[in-house]
Amino acid sequence: MSRKTSLSGFHEWLPEERLVELHVLNTLAEVFELHGFSNIETRAVETLGTLLRKGEIDKEVYTVSRIHETDAPDPADTSRLALHFDLTVPFARYVIENAGHLNFPFRRYQIQKVWRGERPQEGRAREFTQADIDVVGDGALDFRHDIDVALVMAEALSKLPIGQFIIRINNRKLAEGFYRGIGLDDTAGVLRNIDKLEKIGAEEVSKALQEELGASAEQAELALALAQIRTEDSSFADQVRALGVEDELLEEGIQELAEVIDQLHKRVPGTAVADLSIARGLDYYTGTVYETNLVGHEQLGSICSGGRYDALATKGKRSFPGVGLSIGVTRLITRMFSQDMVEATRKVPTAVYVALTSDEDWSAAQDVAQQLRSRGINTEVATKAEKFGKQIRHADRRGIPYVWFTNFDNGQTIHEVKDIRTGEQVAADPTAWMPPAEDLQAMILNTVQHND
Amino acid sequence: MSRKTSLSGFHEWLPEERLVELHVLNTLAEVFELHGFSNIETRAVETLGTLLRKGEIDKEVYTVSRIHETDAPDPADTSRLALHFDLTVPFARYVIENAGHLNFPFRRYQIQKVWRGERPQEGRAREFTQADIDVVGDGALDFRHDIDVALVMAEALSKLPIGQFIIRINNRKLAEGFYRGIGLDDTAGVLRNIDKLEKIGAEEVSKALQEELGASAEQAELALALAQIRTEDSSFADQVRALGVEDELLEEGIQELAEVIDQLHKRVPGTAVADLSIARGLDYYTGTVYETNLVGHEQLGSICSGGRYDALATKGKRSFPGVGLSIGVTRLITRMFSQDMVEATRKVPTAVYVALTSDEDWSAAQDVAQQLRSRGINTEVATKAEKFGKQIRHADRRGIPYVWFTNFDNGQTIHEVKDIRTGEQVAADPTAWMPPAEDLQAMILNTVQHND
Repeated sequence: MSRKTSLSGFHEWLPEERLVELHVLNTLAEVFELHGFSNIETRAVETLGTLLRKGEIDKEVYTVSRIHETDAPDPADTSRLALHFDLTVPFARYVIENAGHLNFPFRRYQIQKVWRGERPQEGRAREFTQADIDVVGDGALDFRHDIDVALVMAEALSKLPIGQFIIRINNRKLAEGFYRGIGLDDTAGVLRNIDKLEKIGAEEVSKALQEELGASAEQAELALALAQIRTEDSSFADQVRALGVEDELLEEGIQELAEVIDQLHKRVPGTAVADLSIARGLDYYTGTVYETNLVGHEQLGSICSGGRYDALATKGKRSFPGVGLSIGVTRLITRMFSQDMVEATRKVPTAVYVALTSDEDWSAAQDVAQQLRSRGINTEVATKAEKFGKQIRHADRRGIPYVWFTNFDNGQTIHEVKDIRTGEQVAADPTAWMPPAEDLQAMILNTVQHND
Repeated sequence: MSRKTSLSGFHEWLPEERLVELHVLNTLAEVFELHGFSNIETRAVETLGTLLRKGEIDKEVYTVSRIHETDAPDPADTSRLALHFDLTVPFARYVIENAGHLNFPFRRYQIQKVWRGERPQEGRAREFTQADIDVVGDGALDFRHDIDVALVMAEALSKLPIGQFIIRINNRKLAEGFYRGIGLDDTAGVLRNIDKLEKIGAEEVSKALQEELGASAEQAELALALAQIRTEDSSFADQVRALGVEDELLEEGIQELAEVIDQLHKRVPGTAVADLSIARGLDYYTGTVYETNLVGHEQLGSICSGGRYDALATKGKRSFPGVGLSIGVTRLITRMFSQDMVEATRKVPTAVYVALTSDEDWSAAQDVAQQLRSRGINTEVATKAEKFGKQIRHADRRGIPYVWFTNFDNGQTIHEVKDIRTGEQVAADPTAWMPPAEDLQAMILNTVQHND
């Protein structure tokens, strides 16, 4: 895990680490499909015009050009290609392009690499994998999907070997209505400052609200009082109302957040809180917003974030509202490795290594291997009849648990299989033998405690 | 399938097409793991220096730069980043970097996108997926791996819904030894011309050999005679020897190719031929070379190619020989779609759609869904209690085969499930009901005949 990468910010895993990543990705895909999400992939590149549409090109985007183009790039040319920096913008473009072929509400999951040219630092990579789910409607999208996507992610995260997590949920309508109700109209400005609460503390935020946004001390105090509310059920609503602010949008937000948190509290207790400090940077969120922390690893930042947007995409007068969440898989896995939260039971997929007694037995050994493989047992065959000790050491070094021996004695074929961890060697039938279930595939062992 | 892509050369699949691609990728991964191959992924970018190492930068490489770099690129700067154009060069770099952490022979598979800025045309994309297997040794690699990788690919391809295929195998030693034996020392030059045999015909190749390489008419005739040999077993050897050429390297090549083709003929009859016209463009192959055609789709070119290289990578005095094969997944899948070779039984992963009788039943419907999901049944829940006809039409339009109804009558809960294809509706227990096996997952139907 302390290996240096040859390009800063670009992680590459060893085969045994990739086993852990595959376990995570397969678990996520399985849960997403259990909930009826269809998989898609979008191309790695978008035009700068598409990436700019959301106004968020302050990210360090990687542009792409053919090697024989040797002119200096024209910064104003929005037809230039660039690598996508998230999966939301490409998905919005995909929905618009394929709207006529999709059925709405469209439930999709997408697991792909994204690229950002930012300065690499802890928890930030230049190439990393995201796993996104979104539900998108055509014109309208029922509010219950806001609950649904959070339930799906709670289930998915609970099946990963990552220990306890907390999904922290807020609602933009609630925040905007409240700020408006106390006379602060620059919602984005207030949110931007509230977002710094964990980093710089209440006093500094209060000062900034007053100095930057011209808030009164009382307004700042109320905004901060709201941000400090945090409950596991809908009791936050009484606490908000006790602050004495009245606003229609605020009330709508309270009711939405109450419904989300009540259902989560009921169905997946202990995994979610209503947390009125959650701001989320992106401008396009319009309702529920989510962030997720790993308990004990809060400084890692959010590992799963998202929200509701009234217009994920628009096509003429047609608007596509959506709600979704995105897991930062690479950030999560890097942490799992650096904190020794997981280990694989072996380094290779192989369960059985078929040894050779003589070089002429190779084809017969392939027959044995094929019989084992027909029952789903991952099997390799030796290529040379080296001394058994050497063949066993080769399997052992690679973490293969079993070695298979075949002897041809006086026209009789004798099969034996050795567990090289215990040394036990027993007679075995290649058409029937099975390893114990826990040895069939490399397994990922969880060394931390979980939510349930 | 006739949809236009918004960026030429960059394919994106609809969800139901992606189901077919996932089926192909999962089948390949399963077979590779059954044979003990470990999965890795390498980063998308390499330095130009790494990509240039094999001398093959005549490809249209995509370079990558941060958006705020506005200077013209310096063509001589080999530290510039570029997207990889295959998986072999990145793998060689990965082996060198991680040699101390890997166990040899190292069996790896790698399924990733690669990028080439070439002019898009039939069968050529600018972004496409490759699936590679390679076995790499440290210093030496037993010849039997040349047979092994071909057996693995024959098994993998036979499990795909692509119909008949033929792996065409040749040996560089055989070709080089033969050309040398008849007095033609420019092996690369001869191979380059022989490679055009299918495109331009024997007469033109003969002319080119004489005009370009100064071959005599007799030499050209012999080179062409060799290239026309094609047998399903090792009988090619007699045909080669009948040409009367003697050379040590030629004999070594004949023996290697005979061993490969005899084992393939024995273990996977009908899927491989010794084809002495196979040249393979890349310079670094040093022994066995492979190409694969889809029967009836020969003009598509090779769908699975590769070979043996004595030095896949070198690190100081240490050399890593390898042998491997690469499937052009996107090329294959594009063909499968354009020729209607496959279809998915439905468009979404979902098997059951839980309808709502009243809006208040949503949480109870989630309970039903969770019971079904616990047995691996992909399930969605309606968000609104619209008329049953409307809920059924919604499921039908998305290709979901079953709709689940729950009625609460006088304190009694009645569950029923409807197969919306037949209209049959029966009582069902959410803790026990299972759909028929063929409805559990979306299945890929093969509409063409197969090798076996």
